[in-house]
Amino acid sequence: MQLTRHTDYSLRILLYLGAIDAPVTIADIATCYGISRNHLVKVAHRLGQLGFISTMRGRTGGLALAHDPKAITLGHVVRVMEPGFDIVECFDNATNQCVISDVCRLRSALTEANLAFLKVLDGYTLADLLADPAQIRKSLGLSKVNS
Amino acid sequence: MQLTRHTDYSLRILLYLGAIDAPVTIADIATCYGISRNHLVKVAHRLGQLGFISTMRGRTGGLALAHDPKAITLGHVVRVMEPGFDIVECFDNATNQCVISDVCRLRSALTEANLAFLKVLDGYTLADLLADPAQIRKSLGLSKVNS
Repeated sequence: MQLTRHTDYSLRILLYLGAIDAPVTIADIATCYGISRNHLVKVAHRLGQLGFISTMRGRTGGLALAHDPKAITLGHVVRVMEPGFDIVECFDNATNQCVISDVCRLRSALTEANLAFLKVLDGYTLADLLADPAQIRKSLGLSKVNS
Repeated sequence: MQLTRHTDYSLRILLYLGAIDAPVTIADIATCYGISRNHLVKVAHRLGQLGFISTMRGRTGGLALAHDPKAITLGHVVRVMEPGFDIVECFDNATNQCVISDVCRLRSALTEANLAFLKVLDGYTLADLLADPAQIRKSLGLSKVNS
């Protein structure tokens, strides 16, 4: 069971932006994590559309969080970035071919499990994940601890 | 977020076997669901290895559940059939390349969410999913309702 890379990268961008104060470029983030800049551009674009991040133009511009890390829940990010919660085939009415889906209770059990998964994530904000931002900045190669 | 097709098909095999009394062949199950026999063979083999189903040899032989449907929990099936719960890259130490994974609390939040997901599934048995076996047999084309 996995979240998509799209969701994974969106969380990494938000964590990066939450750990620093100054605007940064996609290239900075891509280099730091060692992942594709092109992929991150798409993810950042979507995060901008959804209002998680803002873009400042100009020489000192770049990306920044649009909200306080305490105001961004992990559940919200995962809900909107994950393309689907079609745990098994019968969740998608358009493509489902399972002949027993109308009478089988698997879908309702998995839906309940999904909601429990997301409810836990609703209890965490970006600030909770960044409990030690100085250490995170160090891991990102942005500063030494306590700087 | 999805379970693998392997887990999906394992649940379908168990539901099929739970809905009927007589042993059946993989070909019966494959035809009924309209899915690949070759794929089902691998899934059934694994279900046999794990003790969920047994194979009876001979002219009237075939596959059957090895336990009462009330004794098989959905959580157990998903735990053992799903190849991994590596929700995001940092869950797999062997392949993880995220530079902040040692100091980021994402993994612990997602682990907690995973456990909540599985705990819900632990509350459902195969018998719960088969609450109306006559209707399921009808959907499988095995009999008319109330027969």
